[in-house]
Amino acid sequence: MTKTDFSAMPCPIARSLGRVGEWWSILILRDAFYGLTRFYEFEASLKIAPNMLTRRLNELVESGLLARKQYSEKPPRHEYHLTAAGRDFRPVLWALLAWGNAHFAPEGIASQLVNRETNVPAQPVLVDAVTGQRITADTYRVGPGPMAGEQMRYRMDFLKHKEAAGDDKARFNPPPNSAPDRIPR
Amino acid sequence: MTKTDFSAMPCPIARSLGRVGEWWSILILRDAFYGLTRFYEFEASLKIAPNMLTRRLNELVESGLLARKQYSEKPPRHEYHLTAAGRDFRPVLWALLAWGNAHFAPEGIASQLVNRETNVPAQPVLVDAVTGQRITADTYRVGPGPMAGEQMRYRMDFLKHKEAAGDDKARFNPPPNSAPDRIPR
Repeated sequence: MTKTDFSAMPCPIARSLGRVGEWWSILILRDAFYGLTRFYEFEASLKIAPNMLTRRLNELVESGLLARKQYSEKPPRHEYHLTAAGRDFRPVLWALLAWGNAHFAPEGIASQLVNRETNVPAQPVLVDAVTGQRITADTYRVGPGPMAGEQMRYRMDFLKHKEAAGDDKARFNPPPNSAPDRIPR
Repeated sequence: MTKTDFSAMPCPIARSLGRVGEWWSILILRDAFYGLTRFYEFEASLKIAPNMLTRRLNELVESGLLARKQYSEKPPRHEYHLTAAGRDFRPVLWALLAWGNAHFAPEGIASQLVNRETNVPAQPVLVDAVTGQRITADTYRVGPGPMAGEQMRYRMDFLKHKEAAGDDKARFNPPPNSAPDRIPR
């Protein structure tokens, strides 16, 4: 079976997933935020098989999320540092952290976002810096950008259409002749 | 090779990843937020192989993120609706959306978060509802919760230690006799 190339989809969510690659990669990025940089450090933290770790680190470098920096010549050894794009992944990790704590920590909280000064756990909410308004599903929605194709516009209008038509009426049926929802390479 | 069970790790980020299962599952959740509920709707939207879609939908139901609801008896047909835990995944999608747009949309924006009334694109930032303060890496950090084990506390203190010791001094070397970083089942 051919592996689907998520980074060739126009949806920015799909494309982000294509860049991160795999679950292990997300945990490697997490550890990079904890200050880990060297192969054996990631290995000690994640207990991941070395060949898998090598592959994931290479992918993260190719995707532009980690940068390789040599720290020893003999033997050649490298450190891995977050790039600007890698550092911007932090809010995704914070969102996953909050979601995990809210729903999948029945025995109690193991890690949480805290204020550096007071150590009080944060209650993170999304706010629109443009309006100062809290972002909720009632006040904000995902809408098409200038580069949205016909399929994507259809997908985005579907929910509005469905809400108007009533739950049992509207069915998702994108226009068959519309531009494909994948970007040609 | 045995597949690692991420949902058995104490880290809430790892555990969240264990629940979502796989990239396709994230796109299925995305489409559920767009109002899709039926098998053929997800199929039409994602162009995913039917056996793969069946598997992913079943996993999302088992993980408690989607609920199955029968809408036809003959033939038996089901709809898939977001549960409360599933709906709370929305900020993760929004964070992925913003990250994708910031870094992986060189040809322009295809989809974005917009204000429902004005259609103006949002600039989402994280704010702590407790303090009203903007959450950044300078003001907030991930700290241990009451259920943090020794390994996790070590990981969280490492960065502080490293910043104090200077970048070339501190190495990640968790205490070997500490409690394992995986939850026994």
